[in-house]
Amino acid sequence: MLKVNPQIEAVRGFRVAGIKAGLKPSGAHDLALIVSDAPCTAAGVFTTNQSKAAPIFVSQAALAQQASNIRAVVVNTRCANALTGELGIRNAKTTQGWVADLLGVQPMQILPMSTGVIGTQLPMDKLERGIQTAYQHLGNDWASTAQAIMTTDTRPKSASITVRTAEGEYTIAGISKGAGMIAPNMATMLGVIVTDAKLSAEQCDAMLKSANDISFNRIVVDGDTSTNDCVFLLANGASGVNIDTPADEAQFQQALAAVCIKLAQDIVRDGEGATKFITLHVSGAQDSHTAHQIAHTIAASPLVKTAFHGGDANWGRIVAAAGRAGVPFNPDTARLMIRAGESLPAPDEPKGLLLFEHGTVADYQEKDAAEIFRHPSAVVMLECGAGTASAVVWTCDLSKSYVDINADYRS
Amino acid sequence: MLKVNPQIEAVRGFRVAGIKAGLKPSGAHDLALIVSDAPCTAAGVFTTNQSKAAPIFVSQAALAQQASNIRAVVVNTRCANALTGELGIRNAKTTQGWVADLLGVQPMQILPMSTGVIGTQLPMDKLERGIQTAYQHLGNDWASTAQAIMTTDTRPKSASITVRTAEGEYTIAGISKGAGMIAPNMATMLGVIVTDAKLSAEQCDAMLKSANDISFNRIVVDGDTSTNDCVFLLANGASGVNIDTPADEAQFQQALAAVCIKLAQDIVRDGEGATKFITLHVSGAQDSHTAHQIAHTIAASPLVKTAFHGGDANWGRIVAAAGRAGVPFNPDTARLMIRAGESLPAPDEPKGLLLFEHGTVADYQEKDAAEIFRHPSAVVMLECGAGTASAVVWTCDLSKSYVDINADYRS
Repeated sequence: MLKVNPQIEAVRGFRVAGIKAGLKPSGAHDLALIVSDAPCTAAGVFTTNQSKAAPIFVSQAALAQQASNIRAVVVNTRCANALTGELGIRNAKTTQGWVADLLGVQPMQILPMSTGVIGTQLPMDKLERGIQTAYQHLGNDWASTAQAIMTTDTRPKSASITVRTAEGEYTIAGISKGAGMIAPNMATMLGVIVTDAKLSAEQCDAMLKSANDISFNRIVVDGDTSTNDCVFLLANGASGVNIDTPADEAQFQQALAAVCIKLAQDIVRDGEGATKFITLHVSGAQDSHTAHQIAHTIAASPLVKTAFHGGDANWGRIVAAAGRAGVPFNPDTARLMIRAGESLPAPDEPKGLLLFEHGTVADYQEKDAAEIFRHPSAVVMLECGAGTASAVVWTCDLSKSYVDINADYRS
Repeated sequence: MLKVNPQIEAVRGFRVAGIKAGLKPSGAHDLALIVSDAPCTAAGVFTTNQSKAAPIFVSQAALAQQASNIRAVVVNTRCANALTGELGIRNAKTTQGWVADLLGVQPMQILPMSTGVIGTQLPMDKLERGIQTAYQHLGNDWASTAQAIMTTDTRPKSASITVRTAEGEYTIAGISKGAGMIAPNMATMLGVIVTDAKLSAEQCDAMLKSANDISFNRIVVDGDTSTNDCVFLLANGASGVNIDTPADEAQFQQALAAVCIKLAQDIVRDGEGATKFITLHVSGAQDSHTAHQIAHTIAASPLVKTAFHGGDANWGRIVAAAGRAGVPFNPDTARLMIRAGESLPAPDEPKGLLLFEHGTVADYQEKDAAEIFRHPSAVVMLECGAGTASAVVWTCDLSKSYVDINADYRS
């Protein structure tokens, strides 16, 4: 894995701002603007929820028309502008227009994003003033920008990586937000990733989809997929580095994946009420869909998540969840192992504590299992014994704080 | 709806006992025996989880061989005898044998059921002594019997109904347990229903499946489907009433459904940590599968459940859950209404408070919506505007007590 910097210094040709527009009652940062001085090639991945928010429709239309000509992303929190009808669509377009006017470009060159409560209209006065303020503060303050897209997140999420090539250096940098309504396809979240490398719109699209599949689509907080999930990739070419050979593409893809995985894992670590980071590795499945369904079902199981929260080595719940995943699973050929920490064992390392095989409990000491379940992070390895496909999913535990946060989210 | 008695007085030809076998550390009732003096026709519905418990396999084999000749059901709690390999199967068969010896019948005439922790073997000594004690106490104490099948349930669940016919009276009576790991197909639970009416094994099977589809398969506590789900119907014919005309069958089916619905709803009311009873009615769907998937997805959504727990009228989460149900759903043609209480509005009653239509929020007062969300029971009505199919699912809220109960279930 490449070394990823958790901060972002600056990315050539991009200027950003995160400001307080008065959208959040708490008075916290709540509006972000990410601007490129030159037109960008761009791509997006979007929620599969059929109750899509207005900014999803508007951003999809913008990318369909201007995928080689995007200039900015504007993000507001507190209001998701979802299930808001025709007025919601008009408001998202008006927001595009305000940013476009300030930059002297066309509205469809702007990508809007929203997150927050579903079913309320955008506070347009505050938004208009906020966009003007953000425009005046454009610079390199990525920390405030990452903060300004948070909802119930407790900390901002950012990642960057600088890649050296024969042509020079380029940077990939991204910010994300998550916390609740988090499940694959797309994980319920926003992400904006920018690079000063030079790529075509088609390259952006293919590389973002591929990176998304092994990062944001591999996390689960609560199994709910939101109306507003969306990740953008913008490339402005300001580094002068062209990504055109297969080797360049492979290098870029690897670096992009590293940034996306870091941002995705940070979302799980900061899941609503989360106290533990769990890596689920399902292997030996008959195909990749089966592996992923089993991993996702275990990750979303309230009973598995509460067992980890309580530090109770109740591994039967893991095998029970695998059995109800809706895909072939045979407990008699399966093996379940667990180890503390965040990384899979290296090929020469022991695999971990064996809990279950041949359809029944293995010979282990309860105190050893309990110690791992009580650890702040654990890797669960389930071998299905049916084939060669595998999948990794990251998840967190379910605590009482999750209930507290969500029982009165709107107040 | 027929009038269902929450208690069971007696059912002709059946004798029962619920006793303390020392399986539960708390010393509570933990072993139940239900015996018919005459051979019964019988049927079962079983979990769809592929990680099935040993008693599921053993009961399925018994019903395949002796569906017109069943004499008893034996239920233990504390240990699910699930994921216990060959020894688990042998232990379930040994249990059959002990009961069969006491009754002087064949082992395959006995149906075993288990519930409790997954992955541990049955405590055979305690079980053998417990079965002998239960046999000595056989009588009409249905209350203790219902109590003896509880795990995290806070109260026993029983229901009975007496039907008058030209041939005389017959009774249908049942007990159930639930609390956690509750989701359709089969809901994670045990149920035993007995009747003194006279039915063929084929009638038992068809009628139980049909009743199960509109009762136990319509409840959700946490979306987890267990390894041990199972409901039995036993008919001993002791009333002398034959169910042989289509009119008899329709009457029996209706009475059986009423008993099953009462037992299923009691499971939701007593869901782990539950404080609210929610009825979800999805209508206007293109087909019945779609209606059920949407209702089930809303019912299992942690965000919907926490909103009800907090009394927060965050209806956007309901429409967002519908949108991610994996079946066609168009928010633009949908309407969402809500009312306090447990029953759907009668045809001449107002439908409830309209929250959402035409893809956006309806014109309602927040305080009116909040009052319904804070009510101990509510009916959510989602009209899809796509067809004529409908489904009802019952669920409960998600509270901090659910986390408490499940974080240290085994201790």
